[in-house]
Amino acid sequence: MIDITLPDGTIKTFEKGTTPMEVAKNISEGFARNVISARFNNETIETTTPINIDGSLILYTWTNDEGKKAFWHSTSHILAQAIEELYPGAKLSIGPAIENGFYYDVDFEDNTISEKDFKTIENKMIEIARGKHDFKMRSMSKNDALTLYKSQNNEYKVELIKNLEDGTITFCDHSTFTDLCRGGHIPNTGIIKAVKLLSVAGAYWRGDENNKQLTRIYGISFPKQKELTEYLHLLEEAKKRDHRKLGKELQLFTFSQKVGQGLPLWLPKGAALRERLENFLKSAQKKAGYEMVVTPHIGQKELYETSGHYAKYGEDSFQPITTPKEGEEFLLKPMNCPHHCEIYNSSQWSYKDLPKRFAEFGTVYRYEQSGELHGLTRVRGFTQDDAHIFCTPDQLDKEFKDVIDLVLYVFGSLGFENFTAQVSLRDPENPDKYIGSDENWKKAEDAILNAAIDKGLNYVVETGEAAFYGPKLDFMVKDALGRQWQLGTIQVDYTLPERFDLTYKGSDNELHRPIMIHRAPFGSMERFIAILLEHTGGNFPLWLMPEQVIILSLSEKYEKYAEKVLNSLEKHEIRALVDNRNETIGKKIREAEMNKIPFMIIIGENEENENKISVRQHGGEDLGMISVDKFSEIVDNEIKKTLKTFK
Amino acid sequence: MIDITLPDGTIKTFEKGTTPMEVAKNISEGFARNVISARFNNETIETTTPINIDGSLILYTWTNDEGKKAFWHSTSHILAQAIEELYPGAKLSIGPAIENGFYYDVDFEDNTISEKDFKTIENKMIEIARGKHDFKMRSMSKNDALTLYKSQNNEYKVELIKNLEDGTITFCDHSTFTDLCRGGHIPNTGIIKAVKLLSVAGAYWRGDENNKQLTRIYGISFPKQKELTEYLHLLEEAKKRDHRKLGKELQLFTFSQKVGQGLPLWLPKGAALRERLENFLKSAQKKAGYEMVVTPHIGQKELYETSGHYAKYGEDSFQPITTPKEGEEFLLKPMNCPHHCEIYNSSQWSYKDLPKRFAEFGTVYRYEQSGELHGLTRVRGFTQDDAHIFCTPDQLDKEFKDVIDLVLYVFGSLGFENFTAQVSLRDPENPDKYIGSDENWKKAEDAILNAAIDKGLNYVVETGEAAFYGPKLDFMVKDALGRQWQLGTIQVDYTLPERFDLTYKGSDNELHRPIMIHRAPFGSMERFIAILLEHTGGNFPLWLMPEQVIILSLSEKYEKYAEKVLNSLEKHEIRALVDNRNETIGKKIREAEMNKIPFMIIIGENEENENKISVRQHGGEDLGMISVDKFSEIVDNEIKKTLKTFK
Repeated sequence: MIDITLPDGTIKTFEKGTTPMEVAKNISEGFARNVISARFNNETIETTTPINIDGSLILYTWTNDEGKKAFWHSTSHILAQAIEELYPGAKLSIGPAIENGFYYDVDFEDNTISEKDFKTIENKMIEIARGKHDFKMRSMSKNDALTLYKSQNNEYKVELIKNLEDGTITFCDHSTFTDLCRGGHIPNTGIIKAVKLLSVAGAYWRGDENNKQLTRIYGISFPKQKELTEYLHLLEEAKKRDHRKLGKELQLFTFSQKVGQGLPLWLPKGAALRERLENFLKSAQKKAGYEMVVTPHIGQKELYETSGHYAKYGEDSFQPITTPKEGEEFLLKPMNCPHHCEIYNSSQWSYKDLPKRFAEFGTVYRYEQSGELHGLTRVRGFTQDDAHIFCTPDQLDKEFKDVIDLVLYVFGSLGFENFTAQVSLRDPENPDKYIGSDENWKKAEDAILNAAIDKGLNYVVETGEAAFYGPKLDFMVKDALGRQWQLGTIQVDYTLPERFDLTYKGSDNELHRPIMIHRAPFGSMERFIAILLEHTGGNFPLWLMPEQVIILSLSEKYEKYAEKVLNSLEKHEIRALVDNRNETIGKKIREAEMNKIPFMIIIGENEENENKISVRQHGGEDLGMISVDKFSEIVDNEIKKTLKTFK
Repeated sequence: MIDITLPDGTIKTFEKGTTPMEVAKNISEGFARNVISARFNNETIETTTPINIDGSLILYTWTNDEGKKAFWHSTSHILAQAIEELYPGAKLSIGPAIENGFYYDVDFEDNTISEKDFKTIENKMIEIARGKHDFKMRSMSKNDALTLYKSQNNEYKVELIKNLEDGTITFCDHSTFTDLCRGGHIPNTGIIKAVKLLSVAGAYWRGDENNKQLTRIYGISFPKQKELTEYLHLLEEAKKRDHRKLGKELQLFTFSQKVGQGLPLWLPKGAALRERLENFLKSAQKKAGYEMVVTPHIGQKELYETSGHYAKYGEDSFQPITTPKEGEEFLLKPMNCPHHCEIYNSSQWSYKDLPKRFAEFGTVYRYEQSGELHGLTRVRGFTQDDAHIFCTPDQLDKEFKDVIDLVLYVFGSLGFENFTAQVSLRDPENPDKYIGSDENWKKAEDAILNAAIDKGLNYVVETGEAAFYGPKLDFMVKDALGRQWQLGTIQVDYTLPERFDLTYKGSDNELHRPIMIHRAPFGSMERFIAILLEHTGGNFPLWLMPEQVIILSLSEKYEKYAEKVLNSLEKHEIRALVDNRNETIGKKIREAEMNKIPFMIIIGENEENENKISVRQHGGEDLGMISVDKFSEIVDNEIKKTLKTFK
């Protein structure tokens, strides 16, 4: 008999050789129908693998990431079978599951494949799936495996096998198809109800451009047709909301090959948007007792040796800047904290002066490989809405909670209502990854957990996800498409105060060490604006819109009245522009809709005679003919819906 | 007979051997009494040197820089004589005139000299001066000169003479003293009426730290005692107003050895001051049709090769930043213009879209040798209030004039009323120093001269002072101490539009080249604030003051009323703080005066009972007991005296 420990801690006794699926059935027949993969003693196994020793078993369904992985990996086998049947002579190489779906890299020899061929392949895949073939693993000797693929002239599989140890070589069979495979499948092909091939691309064998370029086919599959339909809709929606596309359409930012990749250039409308966000945060921060500082974008290498950043990032980052003759070495600043520590150190503080809260919209530079750059979400230069709070141990709890309040205020004003907090602690098994004493880590981790509980945050704990200098609380936000983004971070740091020898004079007249909190509600202006674009599809909260109103005149005759309305709106601090072009009102409205301008004011003879304006909202609602004062009230009320006063 | 051409172009005929002083007397006896030095055919000569050929003669008085130079150089001879008489055995080396005065480097052997000894030396110098000894040049053979100084064991003069050609060695005699000298003296010692030794410092022989350290004595002298008194007062005033001293006292900025020299860190009060200046300019720029952009602080080397900056500055500047593996090269940006050109290039513009005016508070980095760094006026990183206007040739004149209007508005709002414009043209004899065609240089130079004339500016033309890419107009401002500073620059550029291939579609549907204007009214935020500090001694215009008001309570009893007054002031957008400390009112007032806070509000029983405030102005004036509303009116009116609305 063997003892199987389940995730909830219950231990059940089974006969030796029991399979995960049998354990599932023992729990409940209904549950078992949903189980599609399993993990035993931290290793992926098949649901049909007999278990012969005591151990921990996790059973996965489609709702688990592990379950999806098995599902998509299994679908890649079916794709491979379909290709083998439809394109005899095509050579298979590898076909893993990825974050959303799977791919297979194939050498089609003289054939080329395009999206036109997808339908045929998908049909063949569904036909195979409907056969409800079981996935079955078997072992093979290295020699036999080599012989098999040599006979098929498949140099890719031969190369893969050569790198394996004899005795570890396994294959997976289903239907008439067999493939070299480590395992991790769903029980049978019949569970796969919906399949969609998504794209085709070139991919060098083993990612090496000296090798032959293979054809990579990307696809995804689902246990229900409805889920595929929903996914494709989401994909379509996400494409429309891609911040790179919207950023171009709304003229917010651009990139230049000459300036360099990953270095955004903010166009006037984007720069104004950034400034509004900055002013919004500045105003709340002022009320919360922050003081703005300004520091340079470089610092001597020594500064980052003191802070520990150089040891951590130095060699994989932008390389040092030297000066002629003087032999100095500077680094582009990857973080603002060392500079703020030096500002703290420029005075001797007393406990009565603390907390000091130094804030800066500080632009930092971090090297990312060019292949990893993506729009504004992965860049080489970005501006943090950074601040560092230097406080006494007594003040830590309150300061941490005040920061949480500020972050929640920021999210609320920007329409992010669905978020969780992630508390990242260090990995106690890898202490070398972190700097600082055990005692300080413990204190910092406790402070964060207490604040999260006290503020009633919906939080999860992630062990091993802390920064190298301290634990942190990150806010994970769900956007309108249900995608999760990391925004806003708060970190407790006992380490930099040590490294920079920061002190304050206590009431006992002795010198003490302050504690440091790093925090950034937006995280980075670039990334935040990207996420906000994708979340809102460009329909920002009204207070943030580049243009809140466009005045469309019915003809050039009303140009003067349009100017008059514009001036009145400016007095009400409403951002407006006039479209006086000699175009039809229909065309003007269509363009204003495309530019996502929240309000259109239409002006003609009636409006001028009655000294009023006709207002139409983005999306279609007609607000009728009203006075500018009345309209200004409507705008104010609309703004107050999202933008509250801080404290 | 010889023909002497005078600076006004008149040519006078004299007998061969006539001296400059005789020419001066020929012009007028009164003028001659003021003449102290001369230049013939672009070489400095004595006023007693006989002229034997035709040529151009300039005669200098104390009011000319050349005159002062001769005056101070001559005084250094007197200093040397005084030292020789007071410290027998001291070895003289060199003693030139400098910008303000002169110095002499002396090897005192075993003696040390300190400021205590200055009075004795000064008295001896005045005694010598009163002897009215003529300065007389004579030639000597190299051998005789070497013999003379070898007999005195003066290795410094021996070294100097060894480097001279035989036949060029001249000495200057006066009284009993003789010194190796190239010439350029005033007629006699009697003109020197006032002498002051200023400081003593160590200086390596020939500036080489492997050589012996000599004693450098700095001094200055004047033709009138009154002028010395005025100069010493100015020096005292300048010391008090030194922006490095004030910056520390007012807690505006600091430097950190760890961050690096020449890289200012802006403390909260300084950062707020910067921000007010930025917002002030932003608001005017918005009205003038500028659009803000944001660009990164680095760019690929290629960007600066395109712009020409790399060829000009590259090797003597901060060295390129490389990335691991990818072999890229980036530079810290020394200027914002290449980035703004790339923003221009991100769209295709039509003539109807122009002018485009892109503005940015762009932080740039330029390498300066550490010995040349000075407070905020000579730094390695600074923020330009930069903008680039891209316009059609038709728009150039108006745009240039509009920029002049903006600059004049900025100066007016900040209390700089005394300024001249300097038009810097290229040196036609050194065309290799500049990039761009002759034709474009001509057009650009004409545009600037026309605008200067049209705007009625008080301007001077400086040939050879243009930037390498175009001519410019700089504003030279006189501060409260009469010192001249360069502030604000406007430059026309036909070159970068070529290099970046900038175009716009004209009304003819063809592509044309726009013209670029570079401009920065402040120049650099760092330098501007330094100059403003020295100009105002920290008493900024009221609208700019970090704190406009301090509320001083007569005792802790009035804390609540003080808070109430503070809140009312904040509603009136007056920046105030409360001093509730348990200190005497006298001490509070003294500290508020020291911190240069413009208004003190004193609060006690009477004030609370009558719901009023007692107001005292910085410097002493008592405004009596008034209401907060009345006080707010006073503040508003005071602000409006300097801060006008732009256009």
